[in-house]
Amino acid sequence: MLQNGDLNIMFLTTNGPGSASSSSDQENKSDDNFKNNYLDDYPKKNAEILSGQYGVNLLLVGISLMLALSNSESQVDKKDVLAFLVAVMLVQLFWMLWYIVKKKKHECPAPEKDIHAGTSWLRGGLTLLAILSLIMDAFHIGYFVGYEQCLSPVIGVFPAVHAVHTISQVYFIWVHVKDIIKTYENFERFGVIHAVFTNLLLWCNGVVTEADHVLQSYQKRQVDLGIGNMTLGNREPYCNCTTKACTIFLHSLYYLYPFNIEYHIFVSVILFVMWKNIGRTLEYQRKIKVVIRIAGIIIGPVMGLIAFSSSIGVLVMYIIQVGDSVEARESALNMFYCYGIIILFFMCTSGSIGLLIYRSENAPMDYSKIPSRKLDSELLFITATGSWLMSWCSIISVISTSTSPKYRWTSFFYSLLLIFEKYIQNLFIIESLHRKADNDEDEADGPITEIFSVSGGLTLSTNISLAPSFSGIINAAFESQERECASVKSDEENKKEEHIQNNRLSEESISLPQKSTKKLNKKRKIVKNIAIFLFMCNISLWILAAFGCRPQYDNGLEESTFGFSAWSTVVNIAMPLNLFYRMHSVASLFEVFLKV
Amino acid sequence: MLQNGDLNIMFLTTNGPGSASSSSDQENKSDDNFKNNYLDDYPKKNAEILSGQYGVNLLLVGISLMLALSNSESQVDKKDVLAFLVAVMLVQLFWMLWYIVKKKKHECPAPEKDIHAGTSWLRGGLTLLAILSLIMDAFHIGYFVGYEQCLSPVIGVFPAVHAVHTISQVYFIWVHVKDIIKTYENFERFGVIHAVFTNLLLWCNGVVTEADHVLQSYQKRQVDLGIGNMTLGNREPYCNCTTKACTIFLHSLYYLYPFNIEYHIFVSVILFVMWKNIGRTLEYQRKIKVVIRIAGIIIGPVMGLIAFSSSIGVLVMYIIQVGDSVEARESALNMFYCYGIIILFFMCTSGSIGLLIYRSENAPMDYSKIPSRKLDSELLFITATGSWLMSWCSIISVISTSTSPKYRWTSFFYSLLLIFEKYIQNLFIIESLHRKADNDEDEADGPITEIFSVSGGLTLSTNISLAPSFSGIINAAFESQERECASVKSDEENKKEEHIQNNRLSEESISLPQKSTKKLNKKRKIVKNIAIFLFMCNISLWILAAFGCRPQYDNGLEESTFGFSAWSTVVNIAMPLNLFYRMHSVASLFEVFLKV
Repeated sequence: MLQNGDLNIMFLTTNGPGSASSSSDQENKSDDNFKNNYLDDYPKKNAEILSGQYGVNLLLVGISLMLALSNSESQVDKKDVLAFLVAVMLVQLFWMLWYIVKKKKHECPAPEKDIHAGTSWLRGGLTLLAILSLIMDAFHIGYFVGYEQCLSPVIGVFPAVHAVHTISQVYFIWVHVKDIIKTYENFERFGVIHAVFTNLLLWCNGVVTEADHVLQSYQKRQVDLGIGNMTLGNREPYCNCTTKACTIFLHSLYYLYPFNIEYHIFVSVILFVMWKNIGRTLEYQRKIKVVIRIAGIIIGPVMGLIAFSSSIGVLVMYIIQVGDSVEARESALNMFYCYGIIILFFMCTSGSIGLLIYRSENAPMDYSKIPSRKLDSELLFITATGSWLMSWCSIISVISTSTSPKYRWTSFFYSLLLIFEKYIQNLFIIESLHRKADNDEDEADGPITEIFSVSGGLTLSTNISLAPSFSGIINAAFESQERECASVKSDEENKKEEHIQNNRLSEESISLPQKSTKKLNKKRKIVKNIAIFLFMCNISLWILAAFGCRPQYDNGLEESTFGFSAWSTVVNIAMPLNLFYRMHSVASLFEVFLKV
Repeated sequence: MLQNGDLNIMFLTTNGPGSASSSSDQENKSDDNFKNNYLDDYPKKNAEILSGQYGVNLLLVGISLMLALSNSESQVDKKDVLAFLVAVMLVQLFWMLWYIVKKKKHECPAPEKDIHAGTSWLRGGLTLLAILSLIMDAFHIGYFVGYEQCLSPVIGVFPAVHAVHTISQVYFIWVHVKDIIKTYENFERFGVIHAVFTNLLLWCNGVVTEADHVLQSYQKRQVDLGIGNMTLGNREPYCNCTTKACTIFLHSLYYLYPFNIEYHIFVSVILFVMWKNIGRTLEYQRKIKVVIRIAGIIIGPVMGLIAFSSSIGVLVMYIIQVGDSVEARESALNMFYCYGIIILFFMCTSGSIGLLIYRSENAPMDYSKIPSRKLDSELLFITATGSWLMSWCSIISVISTSTSPKYRWTSFFYSLLLIFEKYIQNLFIIESLHRKADNDEDEADGPITEIFSVSGGLTLSTNISLAPSFSGIINAAFESQERECASVKSDEENKKEEHIQNNRLSEESISLPQKSTKKLNKKRKIVKNIAIFLFMCNISLWILAAFGCRPQYDNGLEESTFGFSAWSTVVNIAMPLNLFYRMHSVASLFEVFLKV
C-alpha cells in the first residue's frame, strides 16, 4: 500500500533535481537545488531504504530455503529452490525488458553516465565469465536430457532460463550500467536492487552447490584412506542415463562452477553501483585516456608468471598426492604450505615496498566521491575478514593442538603471513586508488590537457593549458557521441557553472607544485611492476583455492580443535568470501596498474 | 614496522589540517585546505583502514578462541578466553589513562566537540547499564570466592578488571566521547578502535555465555518433559562452595547478563562514532535546546503502558507454562504468538500512520553529514536482518512442515508481521531522524534564533532575526564554557568563513516557505504519540526476548525443518542482533520523540 503511494508521488516529481541518493551527495549543490529539494515530495534517503530492505528480504528468503535444503530431513527440495530462483530471474528479465524499451522510446535527452562504473575491461572480463556460465548451462541441459525420465522439469527449466538471463544481463550491462537514472526513480530502484539480489541469490546457490561438492569429495577421500567413518549418500538419479554423456557433463560442471560463481558476484557489485548512482547528481568528470606503457615493466610480469606456473604445478601435485596415502597427504600439505609461505612472503615484501614508495612521495590524495571506488575499498576490507577468520582459527588450533604433524609450524607461518599479506595488500590497493593520477609521464608529449578524475578539487596536470580545454569540461559527463539532441541545460546554468569552475581552476592551478619528474618515473615503474606481480599472484591463489586445494579440510588440525560441523560452517562461509576477495583484488590491481 | 613509520610521520604533521577522516569530509573545504592536504604526508583514508583492520583482527582472534571453546574436545579453556579478554581490557585502560593525562596537560586549545555524539540521555542510560554490570561483577567475584579452591585465578581476576574497566570507561565516555581528536591522530585511531573492539569482544563473550545458558535451560526442559534425548553435562566446579551463596549468585547472574550485553554493544557504538570523528573537520553546528512538551501526549503513553504491562504478564505466564507439560507448552506458545500478533499489528499501523503524515507534509529533509546519525540508520538496517532471517526461516518451516500444531498459523502470521513491523519502523525512524526540525511550535515565543543541525545547507527557523545571532555561529562548534584560552583561529580565517556563511544564509533565507503552523502542531502531536508508543513496545519486546521467551526453540517447527545444529546456529547469531535492534530502536525512538 505504502509503495504504491510512494510511486504516485514519484511520477509527479519526475523532473525533480534527482537530489541526494545518499545523504552526502547533497553537499556540493547550489541554493537552486536546495529550493527544489524543499519542494520535493519524496525523501530519497527513504527511497533507498525502502528498496534496500526489499532486496535484503528477497535474499533472506533464498538463504532460508537453501538452509532448509541442507537438512536432509526437511520437506524442502532442490526443485523448490530452483523454482524460486527461476521466478526471481523472470522478474528481473521483465524489468530489464521494460527498462530497455522505455529508454529506446525516450532517447532524448541522453542519460548522464558515470564513467567510473563498469569500465570496459571489467565488462570484457564479465563477458568471458558469462560465456563460461553459458557452457555450464549447456552441460546442465545435457545432463537433464540424459536423466529426463526421473528428474523434475524444473531441473531442465532452470539452466534454460539462466542462459536467457545471462545473455540479456550481459547486454544490459554493456549498454546501460553507466546510466544515471533520474526518472521514475523509485520504480527503478526496486528494479535494480532486485537485479542485484537476484545475482547474489544465484551466487549463493553456486556457493552451496560447490561447497557440497567439495565436502563430498573430501569425505570420499577420507573413506578411501580408511580414516573417516562418514557414510556417503547416493546423489545419482534413480534411472539410467539415455545419452551416455551424463558422467562427462557432471564432472565437467565442477570445473565451470567457480567461473559462474565469480560471474554472479561481479554482476551484483556492478549493479549495486548502478543502484547507488540512481538520482545522483554528477560532479564534473572527464574520461581518462589510458595509455598502457610497458617499457621497464619486466620484473613484475616475469616473477608473476613464475608464481602462476608454479601454482599450477602445486595444484596438480596436491590433487594427485592428497588422496593417495596418509604419508603422501602429509607431504602434499607440507609442500602446499611451503609454497604458500614463499609466495606470500614476496607479496608482503612487494606490497610494503609499494607503500614505502608512496610514503616517500608528497603526492596529493583524491578524496572525491566515486561510489564504485568506495565500494571497492569496502569490499576488499569486508571480504578479507573471511580469510582472516580462517587464519586465526588455524593459528589457534596449531598452538592448542596436542598432535604434531610435519606441517604444524609451516601451517602456522602460512596463516600468519596470509593475515599480513591481506593487511598490506588492502592498504596498497586502497591508497593506490585514492592517489591522484600523475601525468608527468612524458615531458616530450607537450602540454597535456587532460583533466583527471573528479570532485570538490579538480586535479590538473602540471603542464596545463587552461584556455582551450576549458569550455569542454561542463558537459563532459555526457558521453559526446550519444548527444544527438540539443543540450537540456540552459545557457544561464552553463554560464554559472563555468564561472564557479573557472574560479576553482584558477585557484588550484596556483597550488600545484613542481616535481622532479625523472625520479617519479622510476618510482612509478616499480609500482607498476608491483601491481602486475600482485595481480598474477592473486590469480594464482584464486586458482589454487577454486580448483580443489583446500588444506583447511585436509590437515585435520582445525577439525580436531573446532569440531567438524563448526569448522565446515566456518570454511563454507569464509571460503566464498576469500575467493571473491582474490578475484576482486585482481580487478582492483589491474585498475592500479592502469592508473599509476 | 610499517605502523612505526606511519606514526613518525604523524608526529611531524601534528598541526596538519586534520583532513578527511572519510573521503567525503574533504568536500566542503576551501582551496586553503587543498594546499595543506597536498603537503600532508599521511593519507587519512589509509590511516582509517590501518586501524580498522587491526580492530577487526583483534575481534577475530577472540571469536576464534570462543569458537574453539564451544567444542568440548578442544584444548582451549574458559580461562584462556578470559585471560585474553583481561589483556585487551588492560591495554584499553592504559590507553584511556594516557589520553586523559595528555588532555589534562594540554588543555589549550579546548578540543572541538561533536554535539551529536553521545547525547546526555544516552550517557545516562549507559551509566545505569554500567551499574548493573558492576553488580554482575560483584556477583561473579562472590561466586569465585565461594569456589576459590578449585577455580583458576583468572575467573576471579576477570570480574575485578572488568569492574575497573567499566568505571573508567564510563568516566571516559562522560568526559571525552564528544572530542574531535586532531593531534597524534594515528596513535589515537588505534586507541579508540581498540576500545571499540574490546567492547565488542566483551559483548561476544556475554552473548556466548547467555546463549549457552539458554540452550542449557532448553535442554533441561526437554529432558524434564521426556521429549529430548540430550545428555546434560555437569558445569558445576568440583569442590564445595564455602560461602553458601554460590547458587544465589549463579542464578542472579543470568538476570543481569542482558544488561551487561547491551552495555557493551552501546559503548562500542558510541566509541565507533568517536573513531569516525577523528580528524574530522566540523561544519557549523549549534546545540538544539530540547524543550519536552507533553501536552496532548496521552494516547501513546497509555497504550504503551498497556503493552508493557501485558508483556510482563505474558512473560511470567510463558515461563511458568512452557516447562510444565506438552499441552501447557503448546498453549503457552499460542498465547505468545497471539499477543505478538496484536502488539505487532498496532506497531505496524502506528508506524504507517506516521509515514502517511510525513507524506502529507512538504517538510524539507536534512542531508547533512552526521556520523552518529548515519551509523544509527545503518545499524537499524543491518541488525534487522537477524530477525528477518529468523522470521523467513519460521515461515518456510510453517509452510513445509507435515505436522500441524495448534500454533502453526499464528506462528506464521506472527513472523510475517514481524517482518513488516521492522520494515515500517526502520522507514519511520530513519525518515524522522532525517527531517529538519520544525521550530514553529509556538508562535508566541517571539523570534527564535536557534540554528538547528548542520551542513552544506544550514537550516533556519522560519522567523529568524539574522543580524544579532550571526556572529555567534562561527565558533559554535566549541562549547563556550570550555573556551578559557584565546581562540586559535586567526581573524582572517574568521572573516573568510563569516563571508561564506553570510552568503549561504542570505541565499537560504529566501527559499524558506511559510507554513500553516496550527495544522503541523496537531500532526506533530500524533507523531510524538506514535514515537512514545513504539518506544514502549520495543522495550516490551526486548524484555520478552532477553528474559527467556524464545519460542524459536520451544515450538519445534524450525528445529524439524533445519535440524538442531543449523537452527541453533541461526538463533545464536540472529538473536543478539535482534536484542540489539530493539534496544537501539528504543534509543532512536526517544531521539525522535525529542526531535519532532
